[in-house]
Parts: sequence; structure tokens; C-alpha cells
Amino acid sequence: MKLKNDLLLRTARGEAVERPPVWLMRQAGRILPQYRAVREKLSGFKELVETPELAAEVTIQPVDELDVDAAIIFSDILVIPEAMGLAYEMVEKRGPLFPETIRSEGDIQKLVVGEAAAARLGYVYGALELTRNNLAGRVPLIGFSGAPWTLLAYMVEGSGSKTFSRAKRLLYREPKLAHLLLEKITETIIAYLKEKARHGADLIQLFDSWAGILSPASYREFSAPYLQQICSAITEVPVTVFAKGAWFALEDISRMDCQVIGLDWNVSPEEGRRRAGEEKVLQGNLDPCCLYAGPEQVSRAAREMLEAFGRRHIANLGHGVYPDTPLDGVRAFVQAVKNYRYK
Amino acid sequence: MKLKNDLLLRTARGEAVERPPVWLMRQAGRILPQYRAVREKLSGFKELVETPELAAEVTIQPVDELDVDAAIIFSDILVIPEAMGLAYEMVEKRGPLFPETIRSEGDIQKLVVGEAAAARLGYVYGALELTRNNLAGRVPLIGFSGAPWTLLAYMVEGSGSKTFSRAKRLLYREPKLAHLLLEKITETIIAYLKEKARHGADLIQLFDSWAGILSPASYREFSAPYLQQICSAITEVPVTVFAKGAWFALEDISRMDCQVIGLDWNVSPEEGRRRAGEEKVLQGNLDPCCLYAGPEQVSRAAREMLEAFGRRHIANLGHGVYPDTPLDGVRAFVQAVKNYRYK
Repeated sequence: MKLKNDLLLRTARGEAVERPPVWLMRQAGRILPQYRAVREKLSGFKELVETPELAAEVTIQPVDELDVDAAIIFSDILVIPEAMGLAYEMVEKRGPLFPETIRSEGDIQKLVVGEAAAARLGYVYGALELTRNNLAGRVPLIGFSGAPWTLLAYMVEGSGSKTFSRAKRLLYREPKLAHLLLEKITETIIAYLKEKARHGADLIQLFDSWAGILSPASYREFSAPYLQQICSAITEVPVTVFAKGAWFALEDISRMDCQVIGLDWNVSPEEGRRRAGEEKVLQGNLDPCCLYAGPEQVSRAAREMLEAFGRRHIANLGHGVYPDTPLDGVRAFVQAVKNYRYK
Repeated sequence: MKLKNDLLLRTARGEAVERPPVWLMRQAGRILPQYRAVREKLSGFKELVETPELAAEVTIQPVDELDVDAAIIFSDILVIPEAMGLAYEMVEKRGPLFPETIRSEGDIQKLVVGEAAAARLGYVYGALELTRNNLAGRVPLIGFSGAPWTLLAYMVEGSGSKTFSRAKRLLYREPKLAHLLLEKITETIIAYLKEKARHGADLIQLFDSWAGILSPASYREFSAPYLQQICSAITEVPVTVFAKGAWFALEDISRMDCQVIGLDWNVSPEEGRRRAGEEKVLQGNLDPCCLYAGPEQVSRAAREMLEAFGRRHIANLGHGVYPDTPLDGVRAFVQAVKNYRYK
């Protein structure tokens, strides 16, 4: 199906465009009353993730409501650990919880890996196909995965954490075990993302959400090589690497076979460009809290950001939009980008 | 009283020393069985903070037990908001909680400020005097305060938070109110730290624990100017600024009237020196999780860190030591530094 709005893909491929495309991480979610209406009728978050019709519905809501230049499939990074054999629960107001975690080499050897694990995620592929059909080419559809280190962090820690000290302890005490687990996660992610591309994802984003709690040396050993493996393997569609908090790794990421690098709001556009080099497209990075300000102030901040990034840029926040963000602020952000033109 | 071991102070003043001094953030705390024994007998954390005899006792424990080169007074950064009129509770396993928070200009105008607030913290000054007497010159005594932005974050948010989005909303929506509050906090911190120096603190450390959730522009507007005011006002003793997560502000901090800059473990020693310039002494920055490794590995990591920093360095972790850190790891770290000699 030919896309009516392919601005995101043209930008990701490095083509000259008239303005930057714009979307928001977590745009399909609690900021939208339509999402909350769907969610209220359900038993829980996972029912939404695992029911293709519902996932497709909420994926398209922000395209209708906010007029963004891309949809991102509604899902969760933790579907991969679950497909590998570690089921998770999503506890209201607390976040994810894994009743079982990885403790030993035996636990790792028991995991389902690669295509066998990816084959368990039919509900994601179903949601992608349905979304793609229902979008009817209006905008591109983004698929995503957690990065290997971030998924290891949950699989070992068992829940969110300020420090992820249990997961990091594994890196320091049993680095070989950590690498064994990272290899198996990586193999699974690659199989999963190839399926996603086959079922309609036009671009893939890798979320290394816990990158920022690693030292530069740990990141170089335990995260970057696996991200690079994934980037090299996914040749079907453009790939974005978003390693939150890992400003120190931007040079390493800029050498990966990815097209786009996501930046959080700690990195100024100038510093991001300096570290990432000239070649990559940059994505980001307004402070999500900026959208709490009035629409005029949001528009001004958005324009300043666009000026600072210049070309080769995809407009977004520096993190997922916070659930209590006023829709006025979100709309002001999107419209400011859509009204902008490169000189 | 003349200090027998003044290595920390000679280093902070920029003098040539034989090896770096070493201490650990949160060294007086749960890592020590002696601390846990004292803590068990008490009704809660605040009883320990507010009883000079007990605070002095646990402050000296790591000097006895770990042989570190400095003591840091056992206290909490939240004594300042409390002295200003916002009492806090310390909820077991959850962290601090403020039943009342700052919501309006009226709330700010009601606060007790400056010397009047500082005068309410007699228990801290008592603990400092007692510690100094009982230390009998063995090592210097560090006093500390939260930075204005970090204290505002708690006073507005009311508790710890992953995003501190309520506090940050104030910066974006009501910047004048934020500045008014920051001015009052700053005035109070200065009065408090002058009292601390008068009652026995040999060095002052400012903890900007939530620096890392601000954008570079927000940091420059809402944190750096107030830190600078404090640094300029405290002329009695050397000052350390530790702005966790604010790698992007190191150049700004290097222009403040402080002697030492603390670094977290995201910043490599080389990058830290490059950003901070040649003049300042650097403190840090081993990943606290490294101490989970075996003693030999810890010693090696410590030595590598010392080599990378070179002179003008105070050895420490890049954050407070985690409560479940094995004492063997802590000891290996301290001893590796104490056995080191500059070439």
C-alpha cells in the first residue's frame, strides 16, 4: 500500500524534506480520552496488548486525534521476556512484575529462544497487520523492541527499580552468564523484529530504557555490541536506537548500522549532533514536562528546538509523554512542528 | 584541634599529596552492622538524625570500621525544608513523604527563611560538635546540604518520584514562583552551612541529587545560579558540588567558587576532567554496583579509576553506597586507594 504521508521514512532515509516529521513516544496512551475509554472496559493492560483489534484501535487514535506523522504499534517491551518463558504481570500504579526471574545458568538454558520465541507473539503481528489495513496508508507504522540490556535488567531484577542493582550485580559478578543471556535475548529480538517488518512495521525503534544506569565501560561491554548485532540484522526497514541516559555512548551508537538516533532532553541538539556525527538522523528531544506550559510557550520551545536541530531531524519528546500531560500542550507541539518549514 | 589526617583538606585545597583521600557517600549507614544495631533500637530514621549522641556515634562508625579518610555527619538533606516549615516523614521502604507541599505563593510566603530557619537545626550543630570532639582530630568532618533545586523538588512534589513532573511543572508554568522559592531555600542553606562550618564542619558538600532530570536550559536557569550563590557565600571551608546526572552542567559548575566537583559513574574520568577543566579537584566515581564483585576485582577497578583520574582527585563512588553492598567489597575499595601512591 502506498503511503500518503511518508515524511518519516523519507527523513529516516536521509532524503531532503520540507519539514521534520513529528510523533510522540507513548502517544497511544493515557493522554487521550479515547484511550482511557477503551482501557476502562478491560480487565487490564495486557488484555489490550494481546487483543489485536484493541491494540490496532488505540494505535490509530493519536493519528486521528493529534494528526501526528506516524503511528507506533501499541505493545510492550516485555512481550519478549514473556515469549522466552518469563511471564510478567502489569501491576496498576506499580509497573511490571515478574514472578520468576533469571537466577542461574539453568534458568537461562530453559528459555525459549529466537524464532521459537518470536513465533509465540502472533498477537503482535496480528495487531500490526490490522493497524496497517485500517491506517490505509495515512502514515507509516513504527514497530519496536526493548534493547537486550534493558530486557535483561527486567528479567534479572524482576521489576522496575531505581538502581537495578540486582541486574547490575550479575554484570559484575557473573559477566559470562550475563553475556549468555544477552545473546539469547538478542537472537530472539532479531527474529521478532524480522517478523514485525514482514507484518507491516515501516520502521523499527529499539528502546534501551535503562542504558543510563550503566557506566560507559559497562555499556560498551553489555549493551552496545548487542544493539549493533540487531542493527546489522534488520536490513528490511530503517532502525532507530534510543538509549535513554546514555549520552556517553552516542559516539558508539553513531557507528551502528542504524539510521536514526533518539536523544533524551539532557542532550542539547548541538551536543547531540557533535557526538552523533553528521550522518545519522536525530530524533527528539523536548523535555516532556515542557508540555505542561501554555500552548504559546510550547510552540516557542518547539520552534527553538527545530532551529537548533536543523535538518536530518525527527521531532519528538526526549521521553514518553507523561500520562497527565494536557492535550492542549501536545497539540501545540505537533502543530508547531507541522507549521514549520526549513529555510 | 589539629587534624592527624588532613589528606582530604590538603587535596581539596589543591596541595600536592602522596595519594588520593578516600571516603564513601552513605558510608554511615546500612552497610555497617554497627549502624543496623543502633538503628534497630530506635523508633525511626528521624530519631537518629535528631539525637546528637546517636548521630555522632553512627558518623564515627565508618572511621573505626572502614578506615576512611573522612567522616560525613549523619543527617538528611530534608532537615532544611522541615526547618522552613514543611515537616517530613521517612516511610520505611518508600522514602520521604511531605504531608504538606508548596502549591501557591501563599505557601512560600509562610515559610521560615534564612537564619530563623537555620536556628531550628540545633540538633545538627550539636551532632557536629559532639562528633568533632569524639573524633579527636582523627579525620576531617564533612557537612552537607541539599542543593536548592533538589530541595524545591521535594517541597513541591511531596515525595520521591521517577520524573518529579509536579516539581518540573512549576518551573515551566510558574517560573517566577519557582525562583521565589529557590531564593528562600538558598538564603536558608547559606545560613545553615555557615552554622555548620562554625560548629565543626571542615568541608561542605552540596548534593544536587535531582540535577539529572533537568534539561541543560532548565538547569542553567533554576539550579546553577543558586549553587553559585551558595559557593560564593561559603568562604569558611572548601565546598564540593555534586550534581548527579548533570554531566551537561560540568562546565558551568567549573566556573563556580567551589573547590571540588563530584562526578557520578556515567562520566569517565577523562571526560570529567575535560569538562571541568584543570583547576578543580574531582571526586568520585566508581559505579556503586562494582563493589558487588569480588575483592580482587574491586581493587583492580579502583586502581584503574585512580590511574585514569591522576592527581587532584578524591576517591569515592559515583553515588551513595547501596545498603546491600558486601563489606568485603567496601573494604577492598578503601584499601586499594590507601595502598596507592602517585608516581
